Amino acid sequence: MKNAVLITIGDEILSGNTVDTNSNFIANELKNIGIKVSQIFTISDEIDIIKSTLKSAFEIGDLVITTGGLGPTRDDRTKKALAEFFDDEIALDKVTFEHLKAYMEKRGRIEILERNREQAFVPTKSVVFQNHYGTAPCMMMQNGEKLSFSLPGVPYEVKPLIKDQIIPYLKEKFSLNYISTRIVSVVGIPESILADKIEEWELALPENMALSYLPVGTRVKLRLAATGENEQFLQIQLENQIQKLFPIIGENIIATDEDKIEKILAEILNEKELTISTSESCTGGELAKLLTSNSGSSKYFIGGIVAYATEKKVDILNVSEGTIERFTVVSEEVAREMAEGCQNLFKTDISLSTTGVAGPGKGEDGKDVGTVYYTIRVHSKSETFKLYLPHLDRPDFVSFVSQKVIQDLVGILINK
Amino acid sequence: MKNAVLITIGDEILSGNTVDTNSNFIANELKNIGIKVSQIFTISDEIDIIKSTLKSAFEIGDLVITTGGLGPTRDDRTKKALAEFFDDEIALDKVTFEHLKAYMEKRGRIEILERNREQAFVPTKSVVFQNHYGTAPCMMMQNGEKLSFSLPGVPYEVKPLIKDQIIPYLKEKFSLNYISTRIVSVVGIPESILADKIEEWELALPENMALSYLPVGTRVKLRLAATGENEQFLQIQLENQIQKLFPIIGENIIATDEDKIEKILAEILNEKELTISTSESCTGGELAKLLTSNSGSSKYFIGGIVAYATEKKVDILNVSEGTIERFTVVSEEVAREMAEGCQNLFKTDISLSTTGVAGPGKGEDGKDVGTVYYTIRVHSKSETFKLYLPHLDRPDFVSFVSQKVIQDLVGILINK
Repeated sequence: MKNAVLITIGDEILSGNTVDTNSNFIANELKNIGIKVSQIFTISDEIDIIKSTLKSAFEIGDLVITTGGLGPTRDDRTKKALAEFFDDEIALDKVTFEHLKAYMEKRGRIEILERNREQAFVPTKSVVFQNHYGTAPCMMMQNGEKLSFSLPGVPYEVKPLIKDQIIPYLKEKFSLNYISTRIVSVVGIPESILADKIEEWELALPENMALSYLPVGTRVKLRLAATGENEQFLQIQLENQIQKLFPIIGENIIATDEDKIEKILAEILNEKELTISTSESCTGGELAKLLTSNSGSSKYFIGGIVAYATEKKVDILNVSEGTIERFTVVSEEVAREMAEGCQNLFKTDISLSTTGVAGPGKGEDGKDVGTVYYTIRVHSKSETFKLYLPHLDRPDFVSFVSQKVIQDLVGILINK
Repeated sequence: MKNAVLITIGDEILSGNTVDTNSNFIANELKNIGIKVSQIFTISDEIDIIKSTLKSAFEIGDLVITTGGLGPTRDDRTKKALAEFFDDEIALDKVTFEHLKAYMEKRGRIEILERNREQAFVPTKSVVFQNHYGTAPCMMMQNGEKLSFSLPGVPYEVKPLIKDQIIPYLKEKFSLNYISTRIVSVVGIPESILADKIEEWELALPENMALSYLPVGTRVKLRLAATGENEQFLQIQLENQIQKLFPIIGENIIATDEDKIEKILAEILNEKELTISTSESCTGGELAKLLTSNSGSSKYFIGGIVAYATEKKVDILNVSEGTIERFTVVSEEVAREMAEGCQNLFKTDISLSTTGVAGPGKGEDGKDVGTVYYTIRVHSKSETFKLYLPHLDRPDFVSFVSQKVIQDLVGILINK
């Protein structure tokens, strides 16, 4: 199997200003054509460091992909390092310059600055892959049998370069082994007990298969990867192994294909032809966002309301003022009435509601930070749950609760 | 200044299954006490690789922090590598075992599995920082003057370990230089033109200051970092340099303190005592989520609606059916009516609306994928904008549009 090494260049990531999402995207794309990322280096934008990292990277991988450090500003030194490492010079590439001019003119920028012109300078030995969504070109260099690609760092420039140009190129260039993967989602069982239960199964896996445990909230994702020459064979092999899991932990498995919980739900909603709506307080729109994150979600998601102010829970969702006075706004009773009001408003089969205190400040009704009630209403049947998550900060709280609500809904729909 | 190296261990990140958010969190926390992350290694869970990476890391940094590879399952080999690297042995730590037992009993798990007991085995030379939110302890090792900390990989276990235990420990252990940073948000000017305009200013920066360019959507964030012994002095120095920027690009600056656009908006809304509501179609709840992501957002955010199905735009937001028939649902006119209906529903000073086609499937009205109209309504004045972003995939589209809507609102509110 071919190995790739990624190098992320630039102080944005090291300083904690930006989360590195490029590596995740690239690793996934490479995985699909059977290339494994064996290491990622995240380094600062300094010529000596870039050069020594290129050296290490080529020792490990057949393929090196760098992102970042190619912008038009003073703090980008990647191109210089690239030329020095390959004992090359930088020169104006006419085709790239014409491409750049056309790109900028299309965007109404007639005057090309010296700084922009510099972006059309590339190492003379490089093969250029033109960037259709930005001004920094992608450069491929050859190091014996090995290859490097240097891309800019902006994610929406990286994605099309990888997907439309580099992946097709690599597919043709190498004759590659396939890697097939399946994700089995397991709920209601802690990781260590799960590991004990399936130990025998794991030890008996064929040699070309590897298992990883990926805990997400209260769900454990078992990732099973198989490597080989024949894609169809790998898929059969994976399916066989997954079937063997069912007698052991069948009642805990909620999905064997989709990875994301919102996609697992989408499949079930589509299959059962159910519609859904949301009424949120402490999750602030995250539930709606998850449910609409799939293309085609308009088939099942009718609408949602973020009733943040208490009076809007009364006005729009028809929660009774008496209930709020008696039980406070963060309560089982309010969650239940919210879900009912939501179902009436949007006329859906299913409605969800959340009310809680995301913190760090205490809620107006004095409930502890980290408390949340949520209701899952399917037709005329409601179930309300409580979570207490004081150890989570605000964004983690919102994300954990939203994932859990959808996970519980999946559980309920599967057992119907 | 002290240097840290982070090592992220485990196949989750390399395989593209998980985005590495721990590094971002740790880098930010270290930055606040004047420790700079100079490199991040992301490696697989193999003993030899862990050992050789520890070696490289100690050559570069004064401090090494590893995350991941400490779970109770078969694919975690970090502890073994740690012991081998430090020429140490692993033994049961009684205090850690008692802590683990108490932790599990509190969660209703009376029977301690062998696999769990193994988690209380640590290198004998290690100092243990107990994990209050999980079963894998954090181990500190000393390498001459240098230190390493090995943490589990689960983000909500990492955060409190770093924040409550490791940061206070490091602060006391080292006498540290401060790093102060400020972020200046610039809009309405491309990065290359901006760089030209402020070149003289940048070259005249004091030696202890560094500038980075961080483009986010159509905004450029200028990050100015100053290093030194006296925190107060650094802050004055930064303020002075920022003041010098105003005569050059003052009209393009929308904020000089907050980093995130939703926080910039929150400050303005609080200061001007304005309330806001949202009505979303293609952004599916992301706008509401951004506006509620700050603690204290209930002061200004009253509520939001995700009117995904066309008939809900009519029923709840009072968009006229005639308008939809005449102009289609993805149109300037519908965006405007949505914002009006939203303002009436929630009784707010400001209302926002979005209607568009996030793709990849075409919308029901046949508008091109990547088209979006959005309205910003402040009191009785509406402005509607159009964007065409066919190159963005679904999540990037949603995020770009939401950021841009808020950014434009900030622009409008500042110029009022």
